[in-house]
Amino acid sequence: MSRIRLGMVGGGNDAFIGGVHRIASRIDDRYQLVAGALSSTPEKSRASGEALGLERIYGDFQEMAEAEAGRDDGIEAVSIVTPNHVHCAAAVAFLEHGIHVICDKPLTSTLEDAHTLVAAAEKSDALFILTHNYTGYPMVRQARDMVAAGDIGRVRVVQVEYPQDWLTVEQDFKQALWRTDPNQSGAGGSTGDIGTHAFNLAHFITGLEVESLAADIQAFVPGRQVDDNAHVLLRYAGGARGMLWSSQVAPGNENALRIRVYGEKGGLEWAQEDPNYLHYTPFGEPKRLITRNGAGAGDAAARVSRVPPGHPEGYLEGFANLYSEAAIAIEAARTGAPVPDDVVYPTVQDGLMGVQFVAACVRSSADDAAWVSLG
Amino acid sequence: MSRIRLGMVGGGNDAFIGGVHRIASRIDDRYQLVAGALSSTPEKSRASGEALGLERIYGDFQEMAEAEAGRDDGIEAVSIVTPNHVHCAAAVAFLEHGIHVICDKPLTSTLEDAHTLVAAAEKSDALFILTHNYTGYPMVRQARDMVAAGDIGRVRVVQVEYPQDWLTVEQDFKQALWRTDPNQSGAGGSTGDIGTHAFNLAHFITGLEVESLAADIQAFVPGRQVDDNAHVLLRYAGGARGMLWSSQVAPGNENALRIRVYGEKGGLEWAQEDPNYLHYTPFGEPKRLITRNGAGAGDAAARVSRVPPGHPEGYLEGFANLYSEAAIAIEAARTGAPVPDDVVYPTVQDGLMGVQFVAACVRSSADDAAWVSLG
Amino acid sequence: MSRIRLGMVGGGNDAFIGGVHRIASRIDDRYQLVAGALSSTPEKSRASGEALGLERIYGDFQEMAEAEAGRDDGIEAVSIVTPNHVHCAAAVAFLEHGIHVICDKPLTSTLEDAHTLVAAAEKSDALFILTHNYTGYPMVRQARDMVAAGDIGRVRVVQVEYPQDWLTVEQDFKQALWRTDPNQSGAGGSTGDIGTHAFNLAHFITGLEVESLAADIQAFVPGRQVDDNAHVLLRYAGGARGMLWSSQVAPGNENALRIRVYGEKGGLEWAQEDPNYLHYTPFGEPKRLITRNGAGAGDAAARVSRVPPGHPEGYLEGFANLYSEAAIAIEAARTGAPVPDDVVYPTVQDGLMGVQFVAACVRSSADDAAWVSLG
Amino acid sequence: MSRIRLGMVGGGNDAFIGGVHRIASRIDDRYQLVAGALSSTPEKSRASGEALGLERIYGDFQEMAEAEAGRDDGIEAVSIVTPNHVHCAAAVAFLEHGIHVICDKPLTSTLEDAHTLVAAAEKSDALFILTHNYTGYPMVRQARDMVAAGDIGRVRVVQVEYPQDWLTVEQDFKQALWRTDPNQSGAGGSTGDIGTHAFNLAHFITGLEVESLAADIQAFVPGRQVDDNAHVLLRYAGGARGMLWSSQVAPGNENALRIRVYGEKGGLEWAQEDPNYLHYTPFGEPKRLITRNGAGAGDAAARVSRVPPGHPEGYLEGFANLYSEAAIAIEAARTGAPVPDDVVYPTVQDGLMGVQFVAACVRSSADDAAWVSLG
Repeated sequence: MSRIRLGMVGGGNDAFIGGVHRIASRIDDRYQLVAGALSSTPEKSRASGEALGLERIYGDFQEMAEAEAGRDDGIEAVSIVTPNHVHCAAAVAFLEHGIHVICDKPLTSTLEDAHTLVAAAEKSDALFILTHNYTGYPMVRQARDMVAAGDIGRVRVVQVEYPQDWLTVEQDFKQALWRTDPNQSGAGGSTGDIGTHAFNLAHFITGLEVESLAADIQAFVPGRQVDDNAHVLLRYAGGARGMLWSSQVAPGNENALRIRVYGEKGGLEWAQEDPNYLHYTPFGEPKRLITRNGAGAGDAAARVSRVPPGHPEGYLEGFANLYSEAAIAIEAARTGAPVPDDVVYPTVQDGLMGVQFVAACVRSSADDAAWVSLG
Repeated sequence: MSRIRLGMVGGGNDAFIGGVHRIASRIDDRYQLVAGALSSTPEKSRASGEALGLERIYGDFQEMAEAEAGRDDGIEAVSIVTPNHVHCAAAVAFLEHGIHVICDKPLTSTLEDAHTLVAAAEKSDALFILTHNYTGYPMVRQARDMVAAGDIGRVRVVQVEYPQDWLTVEQDFKQALWRTDPNQSGAGGSTGDIGTHAFNLAHFITGLEVESLAADIQAFVPGRQVDDNAHVLLRYAGGARGMLWSSQVAPGNENALRIRVYGEKGGLEWAQEDPNYLHYTPFGEPKRLITRNGAGAGDAAARVSRVPPGHPEGYLEGFANLYSEAAIAIEAARTGAPVPDDVVYPTVQDGLMGVQFVAACVRSSADDAAWVSLG
Repeated sequence: MSRIRLGMVGGGNDAFIGGVHRIASRIDDRYQLVAGALSSTPEKSRASGEALGLERIYGDFQEMAEAEAGRDDGIEAVSIVTPNHVHCAAAVAFLEHGIHVICDKPLTSTLEDAHTLVAAAEKSDALFILTHNYTGYPMVRQARDMVAAGDIGRVRVVQVEYPQDWLTVEQDFKQALWRTDPNQSGAGGSTGDIGTHAFNLAHFITGLEVESLAADIQAFVPGRQVDDNAHVLLRYAGGARGMLWSSQVAPGNENALRIRVYGEKGGLEWAQEDPNYLHYTPFGEPKRLITRNGAGAGDAAARVSRVPPGHPEGYLEGFANLYSEAAIAIEAARTGAPVPDDVVYPTVQDGLMGVQFVAACVRSSADDAAWVSLG
Repeated sequence: MSRIRLGMVGGGNDAFIGGVHRIASRIDDRYQLVAGALSSTPEKSRASGEALGLERIYGDFQEMAEAEAGRDDGIEAVSIVTPNHVHCAAAVAFLEHGIHVICDKPLTSTLEDAHTLVAAAEKSDALFILTHNYTGYPMVRQARDMVAAGDIGRVRVVQVEYPQDWLTVEQDFKQALWRTDPNQSGAGGSTGDIGTHAFNLAHFITGLEVESLAADIQAFVPGRQVDDNAHVLLRYAGGARGMLWSSQVAPGNENALRIRVYGEKGGLEWAQEDPNYLHYTPFGEPKRLITRNGAGAGDAAARVSRVPPGHPEGYLEGFANLYSEAAIAIEAARTGAPVPDDVVYPTVQDGLMGVQFVAACVRSSADDAAWVSLG
């Protein structure tokens, strides 16, 4: 099967996540990056594209979408790795031309944009994959599989958190600036940047739907225009309850995403910084350490794992798993075949839920942490 | 200095916490247990007292208070280790006779009782010590001292939790039965039994006062009359924010009390099950592991520690520290001297706050997690 | 049952381990300390004894043994907590008067003394208990029980280590001085002080006998007269192999005693600094965390445990377990009854093996790490 | 800079390490795999090569070396990922044609082969890179840098171990069969397969040279022809001492490579299964947790790291770092420029030391663990 021709929007010289997407696309060798509009100006785009040795460099995504759609050897898929406020327009442009979209999270910076993008994705024949990359970790897949299999019984309590510390003080480098600018990131600060990951992860593992939430969000650093800490109570359909904490002002935390799920029969605990371990306690028995590809780990994890137990896989491999899931789907689409059943990736609907989560947090917090629904 | 003559109310043959108090009172050899009314009936009291070799055994606490107060060699202090609903009447009886009271938590089973007991304690010359025992751990003292010294700067975020799993299913042994009976334990289940510990610990370490809270509490096990899981948002005076989780239905958690405090300059993390470690991160520097009596630990911890670093002290030693703090205070009281400045123990006011916490959780949850004040 | 009348030799004002023994003797309330010869001179002994409020204070152990043996209310047992070179003479004095001896480790400072003491113990009707205190930890008992039950199959490999760091540089306080003085501590430095603990622990858990060892020992700190680091290979009867490392110059290690035992069917891992956890891996299954009094822990651990799982017990409780084992044996001896089968404590023979271990390390190392037998 | 044209010998359809090399070569996008002789027969080679979409497929490495050397667009470098006994002949074939060699470890299966290969490498202008991949981990680089900078002072003690459990019982799948066949793997079992990694890692981090070693090696599984457990004492030039343990029969260990280095001023501890953490204790100060790209980590780690702290990098990234180091060297060689000073990778001399280590272990063990020199 020939490699998928890939383009990229965003991810220029001083960006962070673009490089991650590029590595992720290479790990399993199913993509070939051939075109890009990597920066916000044509000059920078050219410089960044040349640095990568791209075959075709464009001044902006609109030009790129049109040109690539018109070529026989045009890109089959595009990665969108810009700041949040650009996601919608860029994604729509490619979807309208039937080009598959792999888009960084959160889906969009506004709820209005999110609905626009959902409509475009639904109308298009092209696929839309959202890189909530933590869903690509093998032990997250294992946890999801175990919940679905009933290993912990009906879920009662979900504790999920994503603390960081890098915004404990005011920062003036690029990654900090756009993430704390509501015009680029959206109304949510920590909620949008990392709270959406936590929210998505809880849904991904448990399959539960949030009915309502109550949020108390703050901007602790003086002058900051978006939240840097969020405390959220969750009520799930069916009666489960949850707590979600996102923070960018918690010294000693790097990317300490962690989820704990407790059911009538057992508990599961997973932490992103030690992703190869899943702690499982059947009620009344000793806690068990399930390791990636080790004893007790099943097919859902093995399917997205490359090396034996005890040889850690990390963030890039988890990210690569989403690219490889997307590749399977795109390869199926080449022939009109359905996407295989075991392919799993976050969708545009997951993205909409994330943007709704941010909006709900802002709305609830403005109303003194009143309960609000997502929709 | 002669050992303090100690009595005990509760703690009979099939009790749990009474035995803990007795060991705690012996570790530093400052008490002599001489009298008791250990059970709810005179017959059981006698059997339990004889099993312990007590010199003077009473049928009930009222008789004991009167008789002991009338003896030259009567008890100087009494430990009250009954189910919660007995605390108030028993404590008042001894306080009225000028006998110092060491009382298990929560202070009382009702808010009304709590106020009665506060009034009695304030009126009495006798001391009142509440055994929120986790405040006795050396590294908790260390954390408190570091917050007070400004090592982490002004506190912004407090994350405290106390999950257990033993009530994941319905249980019918004695310790479970009275703790899930609102007539004996009070209106709170997990909130009263362990939530009060978490709440107290956060206050003890940070010194912050809660202005209001919003609680979503549940009884997940069918038929249970008190909460077995509580999700609580906290707003502290001065702007700090907190989350508190207590649960008795979280499989894989034994007594997983854990607190994390984040300030403008650093963070502190401590877990009860590994109590000899305190994790401290000055923002922008590597995380440091401070160990009990090890490098980086100061006087506040050393004062309540007995053995060198690397030789773990545990629950009983922490509990014993409160008994030894109480002993210093009682010995001072013998001569009318003031309690030395470095003596630290939870007071009847701390106990009142705990009962107010439970009441506020119940009240808030009944009003759909509305914000309520403690008072 | 009345409390056992206890005396103490050593453990004066500036000692360390004496205070530990006293706490250990109190925790379960089966002893009453009534007499002592606590220091090396009569004046210091008096001062130390008065500080403890002892009823009878002696100038030296010889005087004490004779006087106490002559009293109707004389001590039934004595704790010997002096520097190593005094153990033999003191223990013999009490054994000859039929007084039970609880003696700190290592048994003696010389092999000659060890044989003398073994002979005296065998000749005496009194009991001899050696406080290799780590054998008192509940999860060590659990591990021992599991090996005996065949849970890990026939043992193949034993990895045991005891690193510390306090002697990384030359130290001039009392605890360091006598431990690095061969006249007081014996020919072994780290081997005698902590290597014996590691050696004993491996034997205690596995039941295996060492046939020969090869040792490479060093004194890294200039001028030090005894080893501060020892690397030892072990060959056990039956074919198992082991490695033992003791060090007092390993920065970052406090009392990091750790043992790992691997058999044909599984593995066990335990660390003294986190003593409430035992890691058990049945080959081909996930690693299990067995906690003290938690799921998976059995009677051997429960028998020597006081509080529920998740409430850590530590060094003092482990030490107290040996005192309580001794108490059961002593109480049996009062009536001439045999010691109950489930009572377990290190004996004078274990002590001899420890001294033989030190001597063998010194002998082997002097011969370029040649294999030597213990005996 | 155009991508380096790469070939591969070994790594066919049912191999393990070949796939790892291929991913490692792709992560930083500096290689293009264009040719291969992937299996031991021409038929299998063809099938494996076609499965990978290789441009040029050869029946054996000799044919490949000659053909590629004769092409203008021939490979510039070759990865050798066969069983050990093929390394020498294959590497020599390419070196003789001036093609750079990236070779899996151990260097060869016999000492004679090792010397042959060293001679060939020294004679050739081509580079030789040995994939002791653990040297590619950022925190291993950090540790090496700290030792070199004197952060822990002069090194006294090195404790290194690499336990696994997969050969606890007899296994009959391909990876097990060739690794336990002395004709394919060499005289060492665990010593060759993983002991060489541990040995190399200790040298890499400390820079110390082993003067002599004493080894006690065993084959615990009946019928096994090579060691599955090795206990080794090490004496380093300058007086440092070490212990090395390799095992494939330690249930509960996956790839538990771990190193601890202690010097006059401090200690360092690193474990392969949690590779993003380095524990550093300056003597007399609290232990510090240095994280990859986090506070306290320096240039040597940052140079080989791709993502921010808290986003774990693992085994494949560490492996990729060696490929990228090799790429820098190869790119320099294109123009005749010297290899930049900061490029670090294991050399053919390191490989020779590894084979000498295995031979010395076998020799020492046969002589009852006598001390033997490496050379």
